[in-house]
Amino acid sequence: MTKRPRIMIVGAGFGGLFAARTLANQPVEVLLIDRRNYHTFTPLLYQVATCALDPSEIAYPVRDIFRKAANIHCLLGEVVQIDHAAQQVHLQTPGGLREEPYDYLIIATGSTPTYFGNDAFREFSLELRTLNDAIDLRNHILRQFEQAVWCEDETAVKAMTTIVVVGGGPTGLETAGAIYELYNHVLTHEYCQKELQARVVLVEMLPHLLAPYPEPLRHAAKEQLESLGVEVILGNPVAEVGEDAVILGDGTIIPTHTLVWSAGVRASPVAEMLDVPLQRGGRIPIESTTAVTHRPNVYAVGDIAYLEDENGQPYPMLIPVAQQQGVLAAHNILAELNGRAPQTFRYHDRGIMATIGRRRAVVWLYNRVPLRGYLAWLAWLSLHLLTLLGFRNRLSVFFKWVWNYFTYDRSVRIILR
Amino acid sequence: MTKRPRIMIVGAGFGGLFAARTLANQPVEVLLIDRRNYHTFTPLLYQVATCALDPSEIAYPVRDIFRKAANIHCLLGEVVQIDHAAQQVHLQTPGGLREEPYDYLIIATGSTPTYFGNDAFREFSLELRTLNDAIDLRNHILRQFEQAVWCEDETAVKAMTTIVVVGGGPTGLETAGAIYELYNHVLTHEYCQKELQARVVLVEMLPHLLAPYPEPLRHAAKEQLESLGVEVILGNPVAEVGEDAVILGDGTIIPTHTLVWSAGVRASPVAEMLDVPLQRGGRIPIESTTAVTHRPNVYAVGDIAYLEDENGQPYPMLIPVAQQQGVLAAHNILAELNGRAPQTFRYHDRGIMATIGRRRAVVWLYNRVPLRGYLAWLAWLSLHLLTLLGFRNRLSVFFKWVWNYFTYDRSVRIILR
Repeated sequence: MTKRPRIMIVGAGFGGLFAARTLANQPVEVLLIDRRNYHTFTPLLYQVATCALDPSEIAYPVRDIFRKAANIHCLLGEVVQIDHAAQQVHLQTPGGLREEPYDYLIIATGSTPTYFGNDAFREFSLELRTLNDAIDLRNHILRQFEQAVWCEDETAVKAMTTIVVVGGGPTGLETAGAIYELYNHVLTHEYCQKELQARVVLVEMLPHLLAPYPEPLRHAAKEQLESLGVEVILGNPVAEVGEDAVILGDGTIIPTHTLVWSAGVRASPVAEMLDVPLQRGGRIPIESTTAVTHRPNVYAVGDIAYLEDENGQPYPMLIPVAQQQGVLAAHNILAELNGRAPQTFRYHDRGIMATIGRRRAVVWLYNRVPLRGYLAWLAWLSLHLLTLLGFRNRLSVFFKWVWNYFTYDRSVRIILR
Repeated sequence: MTKRPRIMIVGAGFGGLFAARTLANQPVEVLLIDRRNYHTFTPLLYQVATCALDPSEIAYPVRDIFRKAANIHCLLGEVVQIDHAAQQVHLQTPGGLREEPYDYLIIATGSTPTYFGNDAFREFSLELRTLNDAIDLRNHILRQFEQAVWCEDETAVKAMTTIVVVGGGPTGLETAGAIYELYNHVLTHEYCQKELQARVVLVEMLPHLLAPYPEPLRHAAKEQLESLGVEVILGNPVAEVGEDAVILGDGTIIPTHTLVWSAGVRASPVAEMLDVPLQRGGRIPIESTTAVTHRPNVYAVGDIAYLEDENGQPYPMLIPVAQQQGVLAAHNILAELNGRAPQTFRYHDRGIMATIGRRRAVVWLYNRVPLRGYLAWLAWLSLHLLTLLGFRNRLSVFFKWVWNYFTYDRSVRIILR
């Protein structure tokens, strides 16, 4: 009996997970590596940050996902070096450094926030990319309110109850909307010994929100945000960030202790370990088969991979792209093992959506049909509920959404460490 | 109009919470101080530690509890000094140091683990007194398993999958039982690339478990633990603790990386700030009115307070004692304000109970009726569900218990930071 080829997948995000699923119970050995022992349903991170959901409701243990696939092994660890010549990866694990060999490698470590050269901003910024980020933001918001309600200096109170969200993409909109609702519909009632009115400001460098959407939807998103109560500042970049204030390009000073940075991402630093010339945003150039250019047995999928569509535009950093590329990479490895020709990437684009708050959303269905408001919001809810991993999580999130909707409650208002 | 008297309650555990509830909407001003922004339902901490429940399900935001009581103000902070002469308390808050005056003070800061003079044990011990402790233990257990499954040294694997619980009280039993079930009914199926058999050892210094229970129930508890698979070692104290092993009094060496310390508690260090002679375990001596001896406008309730019953035995450190003393302290303050005579403490004892795992428990109902096994377990479940704060939490815990019971699932298996 010959040894089964070993496929190593680095990253259990949407790309890595869909690759692993495709390889489940196939005649290969799969090693799935992640820094965490769970897959994160990132589209709902902002709901953890705003006290609506529990962390475990959007995190699914990787081992549980693959408990019925005997050929998939999970390893908790962080890649520190890729030794392509020796076909092995060096990892930092809870048990120390270890080396693991591969026959095929699929890199799916995603992206990380970028400050576009202003790395000093990071010190005063909160991010929203991981479950720990979400818990940090939740703790921070609640702590600001606890301070504000006991503070006698009204100028200081203003800064404590002002939040600036940078970035007019879906995450920025969702976060700004949810924070506004948390502040003004939930927290003010509990911190009632004092009139606290929170200010939420969304700042975007470009002259419009939601760059990939058509003009009417961009406009609808802005209107919906403003009807909720969020201030929207467009065409104005962040120029300076301090502990007490954010200063915009035109000189506007916004006193605040809370800056949420969701302005942009670049490829995860694992890309640099591959020793190939990288593309814009530090992304790994791949062929249409998802194999890395000049590295035939190495594949890259999702946010970390750079591939242009037929119009010369890079595929966007979106979950469906990652999922479909993950499946394709796995398929093409199996094809090669079976002597079949590889397939090339064709993106099945079902559209894009962003929610803004209670009964507010925009959807650009199949990039043809625009939806907005209540209907778009229901579409957003259903899609996210259906794509959440695990029946228990789906049930539990559904229950909490219904509960929160009718009671205006946000149940997870606890400051954990 | 005269100024309303200000009653300061330190600690939002069971004693402080019940005192505050009694004072809600009375003609007094109440300041409720806690280091955390939530009340913890401590009897279920072990279920958070063993991945069965989410932290937020047993934590209830203090502000939410009292949102309808306009006379109760909540302050997030830690007491650093009690200045009885000036009638004020110094606090460390998120906004810095602050002083708050009081007319009456109720101290309800509970207890903290004690190592009976062997403070060196603490370095290698995990505790189970706070929500953060529970999350730490959960992370630790999962990390040990992640290591064990990839470790080739079988001696090391043994230590990684052995857990020692010290203390034969209810917490020790519940923790040992729940960890055994988590290890051997859930985790082994997921870490299946290797046969992992976990060993759970419960160590108690005394020659029996559950000291306050009658002999037949002590015996039943031991039998139920052993029928589950837990090893029970009695009459053997812990002599030494290291990173890799626990050594018992008789020289037995148990190789392990996981020691859960639930052997005993002493009064919270806030007791020492009062400048009165303390009783055994650092507890504050109180009169039968719950007023601190020689400090007429200071009350102490719950674990931190020392009061003897008619037989000269100190009241045990139990939740119902804390609750009833909290109510009494509040009543007696109101009585004094209204010129009525104070009442004295009469403990309404409905009995004690401890659960051991699936369908296993012992109950000593009204200290007269012994229950064990399935019936005792159902009694335990119902009581804990009914006394949990908040309708949403009750529903959600009930749902998870039913789910976990039928699926043998433990849904919250995520390693958070």
